[in-house]
Amino acid sequence: MNPAVSTLRAILNPRSVAVIGASSDPAKFGGRVMHFLLQHGYRGRIIPVHPTATEVLGIPAVAQITGTGDPVDVCLLALPSAHLATALEDCGRAGARGAVIITADFAETGAEGATRQQELVDIARRHGMRLIGPNCLGYINPHLSLAMTSSVALAMEPMPRGAIGLACQSGSLMASLISHAQDVGTGFSVAATVGNQADVDLCDLVEYFIDDETTRAICLYVEGLKDGPRFLELAARARAAGKPILAVKAGRSAAGQQLTQSHTASLAGSYAIWSAACRDHAVILLDDPEALIYCADFLIRFGAPEASSIAVISPSGGTVAVTGDRAAAAGLTLAEPGPATCASLRLLLPPGRLFNPLDVGGLPRSSGLDSALTAYELLAKDPAVGAILIAVATTPQLEDKVRQWGKAALAGKKPTAILLTPGTLVDGARRTLKEIGCPYTNRLDDALRVLRAAVDYGEALHSPPPPAVPSPVAAAARAHAARLPAGRLTEPETKALLRECGINTTKDVLAITPDDAIRQAQRIGYPVVIKGVCRELVHKSEAGVVKLNINNDDALRTAWQNIAKSLEIHRPDATLDGCVVQPMLSGGIELIVGCRWDAQFGPVIVVGSGGVLVEILDDVQMAIAPVSAAHAKRLIRALRIAPVLTGVRGRKPADIAALADTVARLSELAAALGPRLAELDINPLLVLESGCGAIALDGRATLIH
Amino acid sequence: MNPAVSTLRAILNPRSVAVIGASSDPAKFGGRVMHFLLQHGYRGRIIPVHPTATEVLGIPAVAQITGTGDPVDVCLLALPSAHLATALEDCGRAGARGAVIITADFAETGAEGATRQQELVDIARRHGMRLIGPNCLGYINPHLSLAMTSSVALAMEPMPRGAIGLACQSGSLMASLISHAQDVGTGFSVAATVGNQADVDLCDLVEYFIDDETTRAICLYVEGLKDGPRFLELAARARAAGKPILAVKAGRSAAGQQLTQSHTASLAGSYAIWSAACRDHAVILLDDPEALIYCADFLIRFGAPEASSIAVISPSGGTVAVTGDRAAAAGLTLAEPGPATCASLRLLLPPGRLFNPLDVGGLPRSSGLDSALTAYELLAKDPAVGAILIAVATTPQLEDKVRQWGKAALAGKKPTAILLTPGTLVDGARRTLKEIGCPYTNRLDDALRVLRAAVDYGEALHSPPPPAVPSPVAAAARAHAARLPAGRLTEPETKALLRECGINTTKDVLAITPDDAIRQAQRIGYPVVIKGVCRELVHKSEAGVVKLNINNDDALRTAWQNIAKSLEIHRPDATLDGCVVQPMLSGGIELIVGCRWDAQFGPVIVVGSGGVLVEILDDVQMAIAPVSAAHAKRLIRALRIAPVLTGVRGRKPADIAALADTVARLSELAAALGPRLAELDINPLLVLESGCGAIALDGRATLIH
Repeated sequence: MNPAVSTLRAILNPRSVAVIGASSDPAKFGGRVMHFLLQHGYRGRIIPVHPTATEVLGIPAVAQITGTGDPVDVCLLALPSAHLATALEDCGRAGARGAVIITADFAETGAEGATRQQELVDIARRHGMRLIGPNCLGYINPHLSLAMTSSVALAMEPMPRGAIGLACQSGSLMASLISHAQDVGTGFSVAATVGNQADVDLCDLVEYFIDDETTRAICLYVEGLKDGPRFLELAARARAAGKPILAVKAGRSAAGQQLTQSHTASLAGSYAIWSAACRDHAVILLDDPEALIYCADFLIRFGAPEASSIAVISPSGGTVAVTGDRAAAAGLTLAEPGPATCASLRLLLPPGRLFNPLDVGGLPRSSGLDSALTAYELLAKDPAVGAILIAVATTPQLEDKVRQWGKAALAGKKPTAILLTPGTLVDGARRTLKEIGCPYTNRLDDALRVLRAAVDYGEALHSPPPPAVPSPVAAAARAHAARLPAGRLTEPETKALLRECGINTTKDVLAITPDDAIRQAQRIGYPVVIKGVCRELVHKSEAGVVKLNINNDDALRTAWQNIAKSLEIHRPDATLDGCVVQPMLSGGIELIVGCRWDAQFGPVIVVGSGGVLVEILDDVQMAIAPVSAAHAKRLIRALRIAPVLTGVRGRKPADIAALADTVARLSELAAALGPRLAELDINPLLVLESGCGAIALDGRATLIH
Repeated sequence: MNPAVSTLRAILNPRSVAVIGASSDPAKFGGRVMHFLLQHGYRGRIIPVHPTATEVLGIPAVAQITGTGDPVDVCLLALPSAHLATALEDCGRAGARGAVIITADFAETGAEGATRQQELVDIARRHGMRLIGPNCLGYINPHLSLAMTSSVALAMEPMPRGAIGLACQSGSLMASLISHAQDVGTGFSVAATVGNQADVDLCDLVEYFIDDETTRAICLYVEGLKDGPRFLELAARARAAGKPILAVKAGRSAAGQQLTQSHTASLAGSYAIWSAACRDHAVILLDDPEALIYCADFLIRFGAPEASSIAVISPSGGTVAVTGDRAAAAGLTLAEPGPATCASLRLLLPPGRLFNPLDVGGLPRSSGLDSALTAYELLAKDPAVGAILIAVATTPQLEDKVRQWGKAALAGKKPTAILLTPGTLVDGARRTLKEIGCPYTNRLDDALRVLRAAVDYGEALHSPPPPAVPSPVAAAARAHAARLPAGRLTEPETKALLRECGINTTKDVLAITPDDAIRQAQRIGYPVVIKGVCRELVHKSEAGVVKLNINNDDALRTAWQNIAKSLEIHRPDATLDGCVVQPMLSGGIELIVGCRWDAQFGPVIVVGSGGVLVEILDDVQMAIAPVSAAHAKRLIRALRIAPVLTGVRGRKPADIAALADTVARLSELAAALGPRLAELDINPLLVLESGCGAIALDGRATLIH
């Protein structure tokens, strides 16, 4: 085990804890912590530290943490910020292995706070201590009855013990989820907040949870990751360990991005890249914090479905209709039961009933309960059905029925989500399900989330991890790049770099004079395109330096003059380095293929619809680079434009193999050059008919030294 | 008042009720109905009808409904289907004004059941009775403490009394919603199920609710409407009466459509058309039944917002970040507070805080509660803020805080949704809010639905109803259509009809021979398009009878021959009636404009992206015809392709006025011809640059006699 993580293990499973700033007043942080330590019955040693008191809540207090004899495993500092540095030094000198700092007003408030935060980190590092926080709400370890937090959520008993590992960048969200888990009837191995992640970060906790035997599913609330590549390595380890990771990520919207900064000093990063990384690494991304608990609990109890389609059963015809509609809207597929299942269902049901979604209402009264249960068991046995949603309705003998449904579900044939939409009227059924340990939800939204998460996780487990990339980009491309200047590359420079990677481009030569350009045009054959080359210019079309469809020498000469004039008007400070002459190509489909360096995850490859569609489709797929051609094909198939590429309405299919090859090669370049290649865009890449290849018509790039 | 509705009023507010098939056994339908009538304390006269018993649950029984003396207002028939006809005859003879039939197994099971159902309707009509059901679960009128239902949901007390009128096509959904309303702390004027709508339908209930003084919001669960145009008239009346209509409609998916048929014998119709009709008539369409209650309750308590943007406040930074993200995803806009609000907030908050969404966590402790409340009141006073979401977190003194938030919300400055995500930990806060009558939700999904519904309703009220259409399509177009044959029209026939409405088309003349075609091509000028004309053919391109870009006489002759050959191969049974010759037009943007007759709502107009985009964009807007050009522009602006039409990346804007005019004119034609015009598609309509018009390049239509 990573030694930093083994220290974290000692902190999360301490034999002794100290509360610096302990108090008996529950209105104070240090008072609530003491109360919760005692209330929940933590059996380790508790050391209140108080400058004058001899005892706090009956526990002998010390004036100095250095005066306690044996070193304590972890100190919680409930102090104003002015006293933190001194207190932390004391903890270090006393041999503590870790410290928890709840106090806020550090990096999240700006540069000055960041400096004060770094001082604390320096003190901790000097003493070999790990630091949780600042600006956090501590943690709980219910298996030790340990509440190292001041959150009022801990006023409730019992602390929810279970197999969910929660790492959370928001204190009050952790509190809300502790309370939510109590209601759901599930619980935590450890639930911890990391606040500003000054030292211990989300990845440290994920690594702890992967190694921790009690933890069976890992839930994250993420504002920003400190180390994207490490997270992906850990995701691969979690996948191998059979522990699903479920995450909610803030910062999808502009407002959300600003908030992660002011809340925990976190750079949210690109949600699109995060989302692509999760998809490729079997991390289940959810949009709702409470859903983390529902989905983790479901996966812990039932595991991942073997098949991706679901069945829906309800004794309420209206609910069946609505649920069928909503399942489709949530991207869930309704299973088609096999012939044997259908034959058996036919015997059970009145004529005309659909088999899935299945309305089991109004079955003959004497057999009502048994028939519905039999129908469930028939669907559960069917290999086409991956998971089942049972929507309960208000019927007589509901508790008996629900007990039977729940037991059948737990008997293990298929993951089954039970939905109870009525109010307190069906609380008896809820109690029954809790008694037998069967999960349920109260809202259709959550039932669908649970099923979608389970299906997604099952699919991720059953599809191979992103295939290894066969070979790195040729050394020649690296060597070529090494010789290029920093800053923006011109179109000919960009294309030359692409050709070094084996990517097909128009073969442009820079013409320095109009006569030079005419000679080249004659060699290529009219019609041609000419484009002004100017290092300072980013958007060529807007600057009027791209001229299409030039048919003869005179037109070319005029076009050159117009380019020179346009540039003069648009950028009087810039120099026209010349023009490139290219064949005028038409037909094919325009795409964008690009790469960029992401601060969080490193090299990223992007493929998307080009041309005018860019504006209206927002049709882009991403992945962490490098990707194999096979992986590139998966991205391409996920594009909205995919039907056009594969051929619709009598169109010939496009050369998807050549497109995928271009994506893979560019991704290898991105990985090989690392942060030096800030970005490169092939826009457009013209993808021709199947067998005819793809060709970069234009390209731009920025290199950094 | 509509006399049929005044009879319904008497049935829903009866002075006397009879239970045919009354029993004292709560395991039987007729037993549960009797129990609930007594349990909830209905004060009218109750008449149990039983062949032998002299009393049921202490109430004197009669053997025959005809033997009761005074006529009863409504009879509930809890009988097997074999006895229904006779019993219903008896009710009619006894002068009952209405009957409720719970028994199922009628039209929803097929043709034979439909015949038996019609027999019941005939009996009721003969006696001037109105019939609720069959295949329903009756109704409740909580203001009379009247439960005319066997649903076990009525076992709970008290029956939720309130201002929501619920009309529901599913018995068990009504039951679930009654229970849900009890939990939410709201209730019903009347909640009624209509089952198969054999007589009383959803529209009858809507009309009743519009006239009913107790009802302030109308909730519908719809499987199929019996009379679309009547529903739209009622929607206009409800809007004028200030009573929002909120609806969940089943049958959005293929599975849902099949279920509405087998559940209540309802034809679901097109969800897209339903959705367009709701949008234009201020009917709030929701995806979730329980959300009906949340949203209706919110609108009843707060009314519609004056502005469309919202503010978000929470003492939990994580919740604020997540809620900001989710609000954006739900299509809600975050308000930009005005300068005065910002200036005041700046004094209140630590530096660097965003003002909306607003994290009020960690304010100086002494002023924490007051500051957060002050921040709320500042945002509530800001005219840019239409509604507010307060997401509560687990904090000390939560109940006091929530009481203050709730009172401020009810003080009426702004519609305010309070969200309580933690579990039973915050049940005290929930009780507090219920005590003071302030609505709340437990899930962010529902809080966002409530705000979205309120904002949508506010926007619908503030935008004018669909403007009246200035003039019907010229009589000439009608007369022209009257002379056309039934069945599929050819392209020249379709275009001639379009031109009669003033729609611009290519002016094609049918050429009977290749020489004839060559003469026309020379007149028009090459390049031209030629298309084979053949009444039997629907898809011309697939049959190879469309030839583009023909540049000279020889090419035209060859094209004609190829068309003849293609048709021979593709449809050996069909005759080539000739070919049309058209100019080869390019540039512009291809759209589809069409109309069709909908069984539920009548004439419908459709506008959407054309060409290859059709496949990938699914970019279509609809409205009930006729529409004015102004309304057509609204539809066009809602298309995904709208940015291309208005001009992106230096493109010139397209002639949206001409496009809108075409849509309006075609919609008038659709309305004028009624069901005779089964469908007409202009595909493509070429929309040229602004000022240059739009022109129908191809068209097809089907007329019915």
